[in-house]
Amino acid sequence: MRKLYVIGIGAGDPEQVTMQAIRTMNLVDVFFFLSKGDAKDDLLRIRKEICDRYIEQGTYKAIEVTDPERDPSITPYSARVEAWHLERALIYEGLIERELGEEDCGGILVWGDPSLYDSTLRVIDQVLKRGNVHFDYEVIPGITSVQALAARHKIVLNGIGESVCVTTGRQLAATGLPDNTENVVVMLDGNNSYKNLADPDLHIYWGAYLGTENEILLSGKLGELAETIEATRAEARKRNGWIMDIYLLRKSDL
Amino acid sequence: MRKLYVIGIGAGDPEQVTMQAIRTMNLVDVFFFLSKGDAKDDLLRIRKEICDRYIEQGTYKAIEVTDPERDPSITPYSARVEAWHLERALIYEGLIERELGEEDCGGILVWGDPSLYDSTLRVIDQVLKRGNVHFDYEVIPGITSVQALAARHKIVLNGIGESVCVTTGRQLAATGLPDNTENVVVMLDGNNSYKNLADPDLHIYWGAYLGTENEILLSGKLGELAETIEATRAEARKRNGWIMDIYLLRKSDL
Repeated sequence: MRKLYVIGIGAGDPEQVTMQAIRTMNLVDVFFFLSKGDAKDDLLRIRKEICDRYIEQGTYKAIEVTDPERDPSITPYSARVEAWHLERALIYEGLIERELGEEDCGGILVWGDPSLYDSTLRVIDQVLKRGNVHFDYEVIPGITSVQALAARHKIVLNGIGESVCVTTGRQLAATGLPDNTENVVVMLDGNNSYKNLADPDLHIYWGAYLGTENEILLSGKLGELAETIEATRAEARKRNGWIMDIYLLRKSDL
Repeated sequence: MRKLYVIGIGAGDPEQVTMQAIRTMNLVDVFFFLSKGDAKDDLLRIRKEICDRYIEQGTYKAIEVTDPERDPSITPYSARVEAWHLERALIYEGLIERELGEEDCGGILVWGDPSLYDSTLRVIDQVLKRGNVHFDYEVIPGITSVQALAARHKIVLNGIGESVCVTTGRQLAATGLPDNTENVVVMLDGNNSYKNLADPDLHIYWGAYLGTENEILLSGKLGELAETIEATRAEARKRNGWIMDIYLLRKSDL
């Protein structure tokens, strides 16, 4: 039976790949890469470098497909994302059918970890539910940018006995800071939502391009640092053509 | 200058160690192991196996010290933990002073990731603040049991656009389920706190000994599964002498 591996490859540093991921990558006959076809192709390049570094040449095939765009005319947001997932499911269904022999292993490399703000598992479930192609699949965990951020700032995410909430910039903008936790990690914030938080004494630990040569780290009181982060972010995004960043907001300085 | 590496080694599967962790382990002259001196020594054994597997023999020394006990007579809980951290800080201070030469690298292996429910970084900060020994330190992230749980159940922690809260059994027992998130990961729950939650339609994804030969996975509606998990947990704990488990509670079945 066909097998598909969904492999977490860490947050950007090719050394943050696990031994399990490397062993699994070496089982793969065909890798499927969705690419944006723009500046974010840096991200495609790093995935290919990870393959080159850890897999023996000539043992695998890599197939690149253009990732569909989200259609901004679809509302609400969840419906827009679902429509996009369906498009991706159709692409993967076709790839599996055409490119994967009955005994072959396919591989999808996922930034960070497949369990956090990544659509791949949802899309794979959808492909299976459609029932047109049959395969078994397995998930290999990877280092997330949450952990990369904490490691580079040398911090623990939680105070003693406290909880940690991981959320998105969109949620932070919509509902503000969760009131029942002291520690909030914000991912996928393209709109500098931290700027609109009222408490200037919040502590922010920010990081961009974590684990890569372009890494930037900033930390301090939100009230003193918000403008610096916004300017740094805009400048880096312009220079590199893309940005991936993440931050922790903490109510008390530990 | 002395250097200390705090290295995350994943949730139990020796293959879940990253290339970065392995390279760093090979820089270490002296490893410091705190051990419980009881059945949990399985955990010490696995850490030593990881060293044996990934580091050339004879290039490092391993020093084992008994981990102090927490004093249950100290309340509140945070003061008890702080007193315990101070004891650990004194131990590490002594070890660094006696066992680490001026140019040596020390290593501390941490289960999961040093950024989540682990005291090592807090203790190291305390050692540095005391000012009796001087050293530089670095943190290497590792796969957490949160990610191992999600990978084994093949699930995404968050629904589309949703947040994820990571908390402890103690907090869950004290304050119930957080009301502003659909997805709650519970760690360090020795008291089956999930049993006291009112909503039988909550979905639970439970895992114990993740990534090891003793791994157990259970998932389903909390109302139907709570007793099974409690019994399975008690039986496994008795059989192995210890247990490490974790679960995700989800308000809607995805």
